[in-house]
Amino acid sequence: MTTSARPDQAGSRLAELSTPALVVDHGPLERNLATMAGVWPGRRLRPHVKAHKTSGLARRQAELGHTGFTCATIREVEVMAAAGLGEDLLLANEVLDMHRLGAVVKSGARVTVAVDSDAVLAAAVAGGVREVLIDVNVGLPRCGCDPADAGRLADAARAAGLEVRGVMGYEGHLMMVADPVERAGKTAGAMAMLQQAHADVGGDILSGGGTGTWRTNAVVTELQAGSYALMDTAYAAQDDVPFEQALTVLATVVSVNSSKGYAVADAGLKAFGMDHGNPTLPGAAVWYCSDEHTIFSMEDGAPLPAVGDRVRLVPAHIDPTCAMHERMWVVDGNDVVVDCWPVDMRGW
Amino acid sequence: MTTSARPDQAGSRLAELSTPALVVDHGPLERNLATMAGVWPGRRLRPHVKAHKTSGLARRQAELGHTGFTCATIREVEVMAAAGLGEDLLLANEVLDMHRLGAVVKSGARVTVAVDSDAVLAAAVAGGVREVLIDVNVGLPRCGCDPADAGRLADAARAAGLEVRGVMGYEGHLMMVADPVERAGKTAGAMAMLQQAHADVGGDILSGGGTGTWRTNAVVTELQAGSYALMDTAYAAQDDVPFEQALTVLATVVSVNSSKGYAVADAGLKAFGMDHGNPTLPGAAVWYCSDEHTIFSMEDGAPLPAVGDRVRLVPAHIDPTCAMHERMWVVDGNDVVVDCWPVDMRGW
Repeated sequence: MTTSARPDQAGSRLAELSTPALVVDHGPLERNLATMAGVWPGRRLRPHVKAHKTSGLARRQAELGHTGFTCATIREVEVMAAAGLGEDLLLANEVLDMHRLGAVVKSGARVTVAVDSDAVLAAAVAGGVREVLIDVNVGLPRCGCDPADAGRLADAARAAGLEVRGVMGYEGHLMMVADPVERAGKTAGAMAMLQQAHADVGGDILSGGGTGTWRTNAVVTELQAGSYALMDTAYAAQDDVPFEQALTVLATVVSVNSSKGYAVADAGLKAFGMDHGNPTLPGAAVWYCSDEHTIFSMEDGAPLPAVGDRVRLVPAHIDPTCAMHERMWVVDGNDVVVDCWPVDMRGW
Repeated sequence: MTTSARPDQAGSRLAELSTPALVVDHGPLERNLATMAGVWPGRRLRPHVKAHKTSGLARRQAELGHTGFTCATIREVEVMAAAGLGEDLLLANEVLDMHRLGAVVKSGARVTVAVDSDAVLAAAVAGGVREVLIDVNVGLPRCGCDPADAGRLADAARAAGLEVRGVMGYEGHLMMVADPVERAGKTAGAMAMLQQAHADVGGDILSGGGTGTWRTNAVVTELQAGSYALMDTAYAAQDDVPFEQALTVLATVVSVNSSKGYAVADAGLKAFGMDHGNPTLPGAAVWYCSDEHTIFSMEDGAPLPAVGDRVRLVPAHIDPTCAMHERMWVVDGNDVVVDCWPVDMRGW
């Protein structure tokens, strides 16, 4: 029950939904998808499903020509393949449960896995994975081999019978660099490391980048952007990231304290990824969140809402926010529900 | 699939579980339950299920005599009643979807709802709820009516045909006061407000308190503690909170960077509630978390782990952490899985 949509509520109005609820505005979503597809068309974009974990949204991205996808977990690979979206799935992350991926390959989907060590390489071979990318560390303190070790790993992979499709390097440490010029310069430096490794590795693919470097990464053959579709306040703060906020968390005001000047909405720590800070509410000041509540006051002398009023809170970080919800409701400009997508790639 | 347990893995060893995985140590859990039951026996404790969202753990609490429970969401009430744990469920939160609670009442469960305004009271009456507590604000800037308004609300509830069982007042703003003496003094002040309101409201129940005030709240007739069973690093920092850490997140090391001196484990922002900060790892320094990773270095010159090694990370805040997982594995002192509990109260 808890991961299924509620088709009985499709066609209903926004105000009728149980709260908290993830709400996607259809117009902004479609404009975001079109803006990105204009610059990174077709297979030049490999949308990252970790941002939304929703095969219904991934299907819409595939309809626009982006038929190869990036995944962060084995579960995401399994669900995408089961949804018929397994034409070319890249697990851009190191994992060891490779037998689960081998089973997806056997099912007929194409799965390519990131490899940054001999241990992960050995697991891929043993698990029945056939294609890999060499994951190169380009400055983010996370996964990825030393660029100087990439060629050796590629040789070892080929010697083990794997196809090496190329390299990946994620400049995640640069996504939030505020100044676009500085971000562009640092991105070029990181991508130079990726190109150096690619010269040793070979293959057709240089995979990397994200929403934050969609305009500053001129090197990758495919961009791994995910947040652009739904957006959040962290990315919206960047001057050269023009995507519109397409996702909000619908909440109901359940308590109002007129004497102290605040209201309480029924969405809290369990409805928002909090690592980038509190959600925001236009025209209001968010005081804090507790498990099931967001407490806020109004700005510029605006009157407090009444118990029963609905508010739409904007998450600071989209990825963990989506992962906390069972479904997202797609609404049109008249706040009528036009679709309901289960967030079906949650978990591991 | 994503909320069901995997009984095929029950009886397996910790090292065989897919990661990330919520792991409950049976010994510390049972000791925590016994310690609390020794001070707050039977119905004197109304365990708060929001901390674990797991009916399997709630059933164990009921077996120890705590047959009344506290809930924070309608979903928690629905699942507890469906699990046969509906002898006396308190929804200690303001909600408006009262028809869902009325349906639970019709099913035979006993449901009492917190009320702090005429609007919520009217919704309770219309929804078929029959019993309420008057929710009194005792200093936490969240829900709860002015203590001076509690009597009027109680009269209005009785005039509408509801049974008023008493009052509740949650001193959540005092749970993390470090000095036990200062916490005790401030708790007494907050509880004096609750007693004043109770004098106007009547009824048998004064409900409130939590793990942080389990030793300092001498007023409530029932304590709404939840975190004590599994614990987290935030509560563990308090001198007079003796409960043991019973829950960790099992993760696998998927990448090691020897030259830069860090390792990467496969549990991140989507596996931990981050509002109280990063998870901790004994003997290590956690650098940061990203969506699916925790990056850490070792302290005191200890060697880095190897790819494939397992680590057990300790969450900073238990409530949102549990809500991010599909199940929790219960293991004995030999790391053998003895039970698997679906986290079946997630969502809303």
